[in-house]
Amino acid sequence: MSWLRKDPVVGRWIIVSRDRPRRPEDYVFEEPPDDVTPAECPLCAGNESKTPPEISAFRPEGSPPNSKGWWTRTIPSKFPVLSVEGSLEREGKGIYDWMNGTGAHELIIESPDHAVRLEELPESQVEKVLWAYRDRILDLERDQRLRSVLIFKNQGWMAGSTVNHPHSQIIATPVIPRLAKEKLDGAKSYYDYKERCIFCDIIRQEISDPERVIEETKHFLVIVPFAPRFPFEIQIFPKHHHCSYVDISKEEIMDFARTLRSTLRRLGTTLRNPPYNYMLYTAPNRLPRRGHWHTLNEDYHWHLEIIPRITRIAGFEWGSGFYINPTPPELAAKYLREARP
Amino acid sequence: MSWLRKDPVVGRWIIVSRDRPRRPEDYVFEEPPDDVTPAECPLCAGNESKTPPEISAFRPEGSPPNSKGWWTRTIPSKFPVLSVEGSLEREGKGIYDWMNGTGAHELIIESPDHAVRLEELPESQVEKVLWAYRDRILDLERDQRLRSVLIFKNQGWMAGSTVNHPHSQIIATPVIPRLAKEKLDGAKSYYDYKERCIFCDIIRQEISDPERVIEETKHFLVIVPFAPRFPFEIQIFPKHHHCSYVDISKEEIMDFARTLRSTLRRLGTTLRNPPYNYMLYTAPNRLPRRGHWHTLNEDYHWHLEIIPRITRIAGFEWGSGFYINPTPPELAAKYLREARP
Repeated sequence: MSWLRKDPVVGRWIIVSRDRPRRPEDYVFEEPPDDVTPAECPLCAGNESKTPPEISAFRPEGSPPNSKGWWTRTIPSKFPVLSVEGSLEREGKGIYDWMNGTGAHELIIESPDHAVRLEELPESQVEKVLWAYRDRILDLERDQRLRSVLIFKNQGWMAGSTVNHPHSQIIATPVIPRLAKEKLDGAKSYYDYKERCIFCDIIRQEISDPERVIEETKHFLVIVPFAPRFPFEIQIFPKHHHCSYVDISKEEIMDFARTLRSTLRRLGTTLRNPPYNYMLYTAPNRLPRRGHWHTLNEDYHWHLEIIPRITRIAGFEWGSGFYINPTPPELAAKYLREARP
Repeated sequence: MSWLRKDPVVGRWIIVSRDRPRRPEDYVFEEPPDDVTPAECPLCAGNESKTPPEISAFRPEGSPPNSKGWWTRTIPSKFPVLSVEGSLEREGKGIYDWMNGTGAHELIIESPDHAVRLEELPESQVEKVLWAYRDRILDLERDQRLRSVLIFKNQGWMAGSTVNHPHSQIIATPVIPRLAKEKLDGAKSYYDYKERCIFCDIIRQEISDPERVIEETKHFLVIVPFAPRFPFEIQIFPKHHHCSYVDISKEEIMDFARTLRSTLRRLGTTLRNPPYNYMLYTAPNRLPRRGHWHTLNEDYHWHLEIIPRITRIAGFEWGSGFYINPTPPELAAKYLREARP
C-alpha cells in the first residue's frame, strides 16, 4: 500500500511508495539494462505462470486462463503503485492531507511476441488492444471508489519503460488527476459559455484551416495541437462527439486501430523511432456522484495524446509550467503529413 | 521573436520558436556533446567579447565593462526564448490565442572559472551570485510589461544544461506562469481563510515535528516537502516572512549562501553529484496592476526548490499530473540530514 499525499499550497496529489522505498543507491540506472530473452520475459507467451493471474485476455474460445495461445492479456501490475485492497481513508495532520493508496494498476500485454513495437503489429491485433482498453475501463468503472481511469503507454527507456515487451498500462485513481481535471474544467467553462463542446469546435477549426492536420479519416482527425508542450506532439480525436471512450463503435475501433498505427509509423519515420508516451483521456467515472458534472455527456470528448520524448526538461519548465517548443506545430504537422506511414 | 500560444482547453501558455525552428534531424543529441575548453568557452574569463555586451557584473571598482577581472557577470542570452524588443501584442483566431514573445532571457555567470560547480565555489562567491539574483529581479521589475521573473539553474546535461560553465538563467514573462500562479492562488486562498501565510504555517509545523527537516539555520529552514513530485526534492524557506526575494537582508544573504551551498553539497554526497535544477520562487512583479493581489505582502513567501534529476518521467505523469515518488520524504530527509555537507 502506498500513500497519496497532497501538496498543501497547490493541491497537487502525489503517490509515495511505502513498502519498497528506494534508497539513494537504488538510483543508479543511467543506461537501460540489457533486454531479457523471451524465455526469461514474464510477459512472453508460455511464461504465463511468471505473472500474477490474468484479469482478462483475448484468447481462442475454450482456451483456459493463464495458458498460452492468447492475443492480448491483462494482468495486475507486480509492483502496483496503487492497490485494489482496502477502503479509501482520508487523514490529515495540521496542514497536511493524505489518503491510503487505493486504486488499480494493470498491464495490457499487446502481443505474445517480445521484440515488436505496437505500430508493427497487424491492424487486427491493434484492434484487439483497443478493445481491451474499452473492456478494462468498463470493468474498472464498476468500482465506485475509482474516479478516473488513465490508460497510457511508455515506449522506450527514455519514456519510462522498464520492460521491452510491448504493453500498455492502466492506473485508476480515487481522485481525478490534476491534468484530467484541468481538461474537464476547461471544457466545462467553454460549454457553459458557448453551449458547444470545445473539442468539437477545435476539430471544426482545424479541418477548415488544415495547416496542423496530419491525417483525416472517416471517423478520426489527427493533428499537431496549436499549443503543444513538446515538439511533434500529436492528438487524435474521434470526429463524432463521445465523452467516453467506452462508447466507441465497432466501425470506429477499426478506423482508430488503422489511424493510431499509421500515426505512430509516421512518427517513427520522421524521428527515427523515438521513445514516446501516449495517454488516452476519457471522461471520469460517471457512476459515483452522478450529476456532479451534469453536462458531462455534452462537454467532454475523449482523445489520445502522443508525445515523442526527444527533448530534455529543464528548470524553466519545472519551475513555471511553461514549455518551450522549438518546432512550430505547423512545421511538425508538415513533416508528419509527408512522412510515409 | 517567438510566439506565446495558449492551449484552448487548459489555458496553459507555451513558447514556440519562430526564428530558428528545429527540424526532425536537429533532435539528435542523445548524449552530451564534448565539453569545450576554457579557451573556446564564451562564458570564461578573457572571452568577454564572445558574448553579447554585459548587462551588469560584480567587478573591481574602475574595471571597465566586458573586460576580465569580474566575479559574476550577467549577459543577455544569445538564443533568447523571449525578447525584450517590441510591445506585447495579443491576437486571436477562432478559439486560439497568442501573443508575441516579449520578455527577457539572461544568463548569470556564476564564476570566471569553467570547470566548477556552484556548490564548490567559496561562500563569498555564492553570496555574489545571490546578490546578482536580487539586483536582476529589481531591475527587470522596472519593466511593467514583465509580470514575473523566474531564476533557475540547470546543472548537468540531464537537467537540460547545454553549457558546462557554471551559470544560472533568468526568464521574465509577460504573463504569470501557471505554476507560479497556482502557488500564489493556493497561498491566497489559505490566507483568505486563515489570515495567516501558508508558508509560515508550513515552517512552524515542520520545525515542531522535524522528521522532514534537513537543516535549520538562524534565518533558513531546509526541508524535504511533505508531497514532493520527485525523490530527494528539497525546499529552502527564509524563516522570516518576506513575499519577495528582493527584500532579503545582507545578513540573510550570507546565511542563504552558506545554506544553499551546504544543501547542494549534501545532495551531491547523497546521490553522487546528480544533475539537478533549482528554481527561485518570488512574488510576481508588484508594480503593474498594483493592488491586484491586495494582500500580497502577507500571503506569499519566497522560497527555493531543488529537484535532483534521477528519475525518468513516464506517460502516467505526463497524462495525469500525478507524480510517483519512490522514496518517502521522511527517508530522503534522513539521508540528506546525515550526509556530510
